[in-house]
Amino acid sequence: MQLTIEDATELAVRVLTRYGMPQRYAAMVAEHLVDAALSGHEFASLARLPTLAKLLQDRPPAGEIRVVKETANSALIDGGDNIAYAVSVIAMDKAIEICRKSGIAMVSAYNTWFSGRLAYYVERAARQGFIGIHCMHGTARTAPFGGMEALLGTNPIAIAFPSADEPVIIDMSMSATTHGAANLAKAKGETLPAGLAIDSSGRPTVDPDAALKGAFLAWGGHRGYGISLAVQLLGMLAGSEPVIGDDSRFGQFYLVIDPELVMPREQYHARVSELKKIIKASRPAPGVEKVRVPGENSLAHRQRARDAGAAAEVHVDDTIYARIRELLN
Amino acid sequence: MQLTIEDATELAVRVLTRYGMPQRYAAMVAEHLVDAALSGHEFASLARLPTLAKLLQDRPPAGEIRVVKETANSALIDGGDNIAYAVSVIAMDKAIEICRKSGIAMVSAYNTWFSGRLAYYVERAARQGFIGIHCMHGTARTAPFGGMEALLGTNPIAIAFPSADEPVIIDMSMSATTHGAANLAKAKGETLPAGLAIDSSGRPTVDPDAALKGAFLAWGGHRGYGISLAVQLLGMLAGSEPVIGDDSRFGQFYLVIDPELVMPREQYHARVSELKKIIKASRPAPGVEKVRVPGENSLAHRQRARDAGAAAEVHVDDTIYARIRELLN
Repeated sequence: MQLTIEDATELAVRVLTRYGMPQRYAAMVAEHLVDAALSGHEFASLARLPTLAKLLQDRPPAGEIRVVKETANSALIDGGDNIAYAVSVIAMDKAIEICRKSGIAMVSAYNTWFSGRLAYYVERAARQGFIGIHCMHGTARTAPFGGMEALLGTNPIAIAFPSADEPVIIDMSMSATTHGAANLAKAKGETLPAGLAIDSSGRPTVDPDAALKGAFLAWGGHRGYGISLAVQLLGMLAGSEPVIGDDSRFGQFYLVIDPELVMPREQYHARVSELKKIIKASRPAPGVEKVRVPGENSLAHRQRARDAGAAAEVHVDDTIYARIRELLN
Repeated sequence: MQLTIEDATELAVRVLTRYGMPQRYAAMVAEHLVDAALSGHEFASLARLPTLAKLLQDRPPAGEIRVVKETANSALIDGGDNIAYAVSVIAMDKAIEICRKSGIAMVSAYNTWFSGRLAYYVERAARQGFIGIHCMHGTARTAPFGGMEALLGTNPIAIAFPSADEPVIIDMSMSATTHGAANLAKAKGETLPAGLAIDSSGRPTVDPDAALKGAFLAWGGHRGYGISLAVQLLGMLAGSEPVIGDDSRFGQFYLVIDPELVMPREQYHARVSELKKIIKASRPAPGVEKVRVPGENSLAHRQRARDAGAAAEVHVDDTIYARIRELLN
């Protein structure tokens, strides 16, 4: 199914409001989902609507997203039990607003849950000329290195650097696989690649159901475990419990830095562009076509969609489209 | 060879000042080297002196370490071409000083080179109740993922979190191996483990000499490459060149955060302790004795040395001790 941007946005808003999300927050989520499609991430796009509808259905109505504390270089946000897709836009924009005055800003957000591509939020900072960092402590699904209990979230982190042209955008989960990927494999009756998860006895498993009952492995052994733990501890600044047992009360961390604090902003942007250029022009390893800079593919994908203008289309898998329509019955 | 702490410190200061390092900075480096021994990192201890002497020998006399710019929440430091062992103590302490007033502080340092265990600096912040983050952009020795040219530093990063008891200290290099390890293997006539480096034609190599002429691999594939690139770009805030060709003009980044900005400090400390306790009490994977928290072993090692009091000793390999003595001839 091919939808226009307008139709895809409207469809997403209709589903989300139907399941109780306030209109203004649903508009934010819809914009994120459509952007994911335009950036080449179909799985993070409208395909998420059935999951989001299910998560919304089980919840009491959300409140307002409110800044509950603010200093010259920080803010604390109560997400009002709203989805993090909306909370993170408001939190990142608050961090950017504070950074514009003070040069650096840290924002924490609590009372929120579930989010999409973290790249989406940090890019907002980079588009303003700032460095944006965001990470999230969520539901415990990952075992610490050497352990077998799910104590760490999948703990994604994203960092965006502004340049004289397109930003560098790094976005990764710190678990070897994700909840979405395991659920998708389970739904399709497929197995997981080897080495990503353990069952509840701590034995390696490729069965997604056993993995969901057991734990994902931390990506990258003891070093990946270290970074995952750092993400969790930064998220906990928002007051999240050390181990999050259900799909709520995540801990969100946002940091925005203006390079101007220590060097002329435009000079920094030029240097970032220069490093990108050097990397992209460097010799690829045997068998590799081209050396890439993180974020490059998503940005190019979106640019092609923008170039297409009104003709740009959002692709939705036919089976998933049928399921989305059913959500409106 | 077993030395008392006093004798080991004095020996290090004598070597460093002999090769031109100002006395007050040599004292800082010596304290770091001795602490590395007490924390169980013999390789990062007095064994470094021959390398440091050689690096000092080739340099003009260093100047002063000076704060050249300071705002309410940041500082920029000119390292005066001093070794980063000294610059990083001064930079981290400046960040802590600013953080105490404003709740968050970023410091960048330029005109400096070579450093030891980054854990040493971030621990200073955690001991004051703050979160400390430090990373360093150094000499290009690592290929980007998919590439074969050495464009990235080994780009270490360290993060320390304060707790109600001992801090969590994460410290890792973002390259698959380090310059020190490759040089050591070369000196011993040993090979490197497979999968850590490529030769100058981009082919995998276990020959340390070929690796030093080629490039180390980024640790952890495309995700490790992403984090390494982020470290490089944060370091470049200090004005370091995008790719550093020789052993000088590194870019150093320090960030200190007071949890009090968003939650009561003691409450945060208690939560960090709680997470540590949960992880350490969790079931280990089959074949693993105990689940560990990053930094735990080094801190326990140092505690045993402290408990020994005046009887604590610094072990130096006999061959290395002989080489150190020769440096004083």
